[in-house]
Amino acid sequence: MTVSTITFTTDFGYADPYVGAMKGVALGINPDALLVDVSHAVEPLDVVHGAFVLANFAPFFPTGTIHVVVVDPGVGTKRRALAVQTEGQVFVLPDNGLLTFLLRDAGVLSRIAAETPFLDPVEVDVPDSWRVIQLTKEAFWRKPVSPTFHGRDIFTPVAAHISNGVGLAELGEPIDRIVCLNIPVPGWDGDTIEGRIVRVDHFGNLVSTIPNALVPPDVQVLVAGAIIHGLAPTFQAGVGLLALKGSSGYVEIAISGGSAAGALGAKVGDVVRAAR
Amino acid sequence: MTVSTITFTTDFGYADPYVGAMKGVALGINPDALLVDVSHAVEPLDVVHGAFVLANFAPFFPTGTIHVVVVDPGVGTKRRALAVQTEGQVFVLPDNGLLTFLLRDAGVLSRIAAETPFLDPVEVDVPDSWRVIQLTKEAFWRKPVSPTFHGRDIFTPVAAHISNGVGLAELGEPIDRIVCLNIPVPGWDGDTIEGRIVRVDHFGNLVSTIPNALVPPDVQVLVAGAIIHGLAPTFQAGVGLLALKGSSGYVEIAISGGSAAGALGAKVGDVVRAAR
Amino acid sequence: MTVSTITFTTDFGYADPYVGAMKGVALGINPDALLVDVSHAVEPLDVVHGAFVLANFAPFFPTGTIHVVVVDPGVGTKRRALAVQTEGQVFVLPDNGLLTFLLRDAGVLSRIAAETPFLDPVEVDVPDSWRVIQLTKEAFWRKPVSPTFHGRDIFTPVAAHISNGVGLAELGEPIDRIVCLNIPVPGWDGDTIEGRIVRVDHFGNLVSTIPNALVPPDVQVLVAGAIIHGLAPTFQAGVGLLALKGSSGYVEIAISGGSAAGALGAKVGDVVRAAR
Repeated sequence: MTVSTITFTTDFGYADPYVGAMKGVALGINPDALLVDVSHAVEPLDVVHGAFVLANFAPFFPTGTIHVVVVDPGVGTKRRALAVQTEGQVFVLPDNGLLTFLLRDAGVLSRIAAETPFLDPVEVDVPDSWRVIQLTKEAFWRKPVSPTFHGRDIFTPVAAHISNGVGLAELGEPIDRIVCLNIPVPGWDGDTIEGRIVRVDHFGNLVSTIPNALVPPDVQVLVAGAIIHGLAPTFQAGVGLLALKGSSGYVEIAISGGSAAGALGAKVGDVVRAAR
Repeated sequence: MTVSTITFTTDFGYADPYVGAMKGVALGINPDALLVDVSHAVEPLDVVHGAFVLANFAPFFPTGTIHVVVVDPGVGTKRRALAVQTEGQVFVLPDNGLLTFLLRDAGVLSRIAAETPFLDPVEVDVPDSWRVIQLTKEAFWRKPVSPTFHGRDIFTPVAAHISNGVGLAELGEPIDRIVCLNIPVPGWDGDTIEGRIVRVDHFGNLVSTIPNALVPPDVQVLVAGAIIHGLAPTFQAGVGLLALKGSSGYVEIAISGGSAAGALGAKVGDVVRAAR
Repeated sequence: MTVSTITFTTDFGYADPYVGAMKGVALGINPDALLVDVSHAVEPLDVVHGAFVLANFAPFFPTGTIHVVVVDPGVGTKRRALAVQTEGQVFVLPDNGLLTFLLRDAGVLSRIAAETPFLDPVEVDVPDSWRVIQLTKEAFWRKPVSPTFHGRDIFTPVAAHISNGVGLAELGEPIDRIVCLNIPVPGWDGDTIEGRIVRVDHFGNLVSTIPNALVPPDVQVLVAGAIIHGLAPTFQAGVGLLALKGSSGYVEIAISGGSAAGALGAKVGDVVRAAR
């Protein structure tokens, strides 16, 4: 039997015992689990950042992988704790928008009211192919539960029990609405697509919400007062600002050998426009 | 047979080959060992930081887990190298105070002379239930031993040999005194407990030495010139400074959505008082 | 059978989904692979840094370990992608100089023309005991290949296929020249060795290209305007600047309890001289 994999994505940083404590708890429940670090450098309490990371690593894992994702400003409050089965993966996380980009990919964002501000949390219907369980069965938690560390006391033990074969239905009650942050689902509006920057990556590249698939090679990209003419094939395809079809499926803005974010002073939330 | 787990906690950072070299050495000796990263972001040479991390992740691991902990300003000098069996875990580390908080939990700190300055190293008796071996048997080391990298050449190979079944007694000589840093073991003195901040975590939360179990809900907490009235249940339970029962078992000071350390200018060593 | 180990060294940082995506791809191809993080904190696009890390961790791994190393400013351009079998290890990486220090250790650097500037890329002969394959067989790649993320779409899938038993010859065409950066191979020139700083480590220690084996205990080391008299045995062997036989086999400059780089304002590329 291939071992069960549990991945960890948090905003806990690398200098504290928190990540180690979670790994110890996981191995205490399933000594044969394979533990995989994804990131513990999500900006503290930044759910959008966590959601972006989640959506862009998890789909690459084998079906059935279990992902613990803890960016949890509401820990200990009445925000719900969830186990979520998507089409291929299982997530154990707080109900605060961490699944936003996966929900976009599942097509539910277009149902959000147009006047909702960017990144505001709203409840949306769970996609038909998903299953969402609100975690309520305390038998699968570590006791006593610290009101400030559900990563150690709820999310990780639940993930480890799932890796041992516990079914999602045993963990709590099914629910059919889930929290999502409002991000635009761009499409052509006349000759323009209006998107947003949703991530400034480690290299200073700006990742937008404009799908690669929608833009022609001679597109014009407007961001932070700059205009970029046409798509570049690689990061080294020119000097100055470049627009590229990004590896996450969405248009990125970059500078060869430098930081586009630094050069433009651009940040998450800034508007990006594509024009044809 | 379940594989042996070896965890790694160091101040080596993430940008150098040092951690990778240790992992390679471990797998060279025990190819089936399960290697787990805890932290390599302990502040360089900061034994107190390393000791805090150690005490707050290790107890969550299954019995028999082997922990390599290398924060070692005295590497290559006459400071001793140790293998330590506590009640549940095995540690391989320098004898410089890294076990301080575990020694506190084992009850030996109260025997330190009252006039000893905060964090000064002193030798204390090894707790009755522990076993401490000074590493002297060079047959279990990597040769030649670099005087500046015992993590690679002594601690990791010894840990890997233990994971292969080598008994602690084979590794060197038992000793009955061990280095500990002086931290207060707080208790009520009239209507006051005087503690210290021993960790400023990634979120800017201040972790004190005042045990959760000693403080009533309506306690007053005094720190860095501020007074906090009563304990909060969660990080979102109010605005401004909060005092909470921390997830490590000790009172913490936090700010909802912000950094208490930043707001207060507080740091490790600052006095914290609880008053009833 | 012992599982296959795949290590990861990149400049992707810890805050993005890139590392997680690579791990997912690896486990999708070989669910039994053992994944080991070495570093994702190589300075962005800094091939020298990546090369230094590679050469100083990889030799400690068991024979046959597979190392994915991605510091790849030329991703998507015509720079070649390689699988390299050295005497003990397998590397999957871009052909941009990441093997520089291993090539030095294999003795090929002395054939570089003397007038080549420091760190300039040149092509050198593949050492006799190595085998280098240019990756061309797309059947072993993830499709479609993003022109900006070969780590996910070429290097990691190829490494995972190797871990499944695919032979290097199946992956592409053998080549006999490989890119190397020019670093000095120091030796005594009269009473002086002239070397360079090639790494400022996490502690601020300066790692030079002057081999430990060449310097006598009473050597004088000159760096950044300072003169150090004789070698110190450990980091605590004195106050002020120290020169030591470094754990990587080359002379290092350090300050007890401090940062030599900070004190000297020294950086990669600075000249270091040993005098007898």
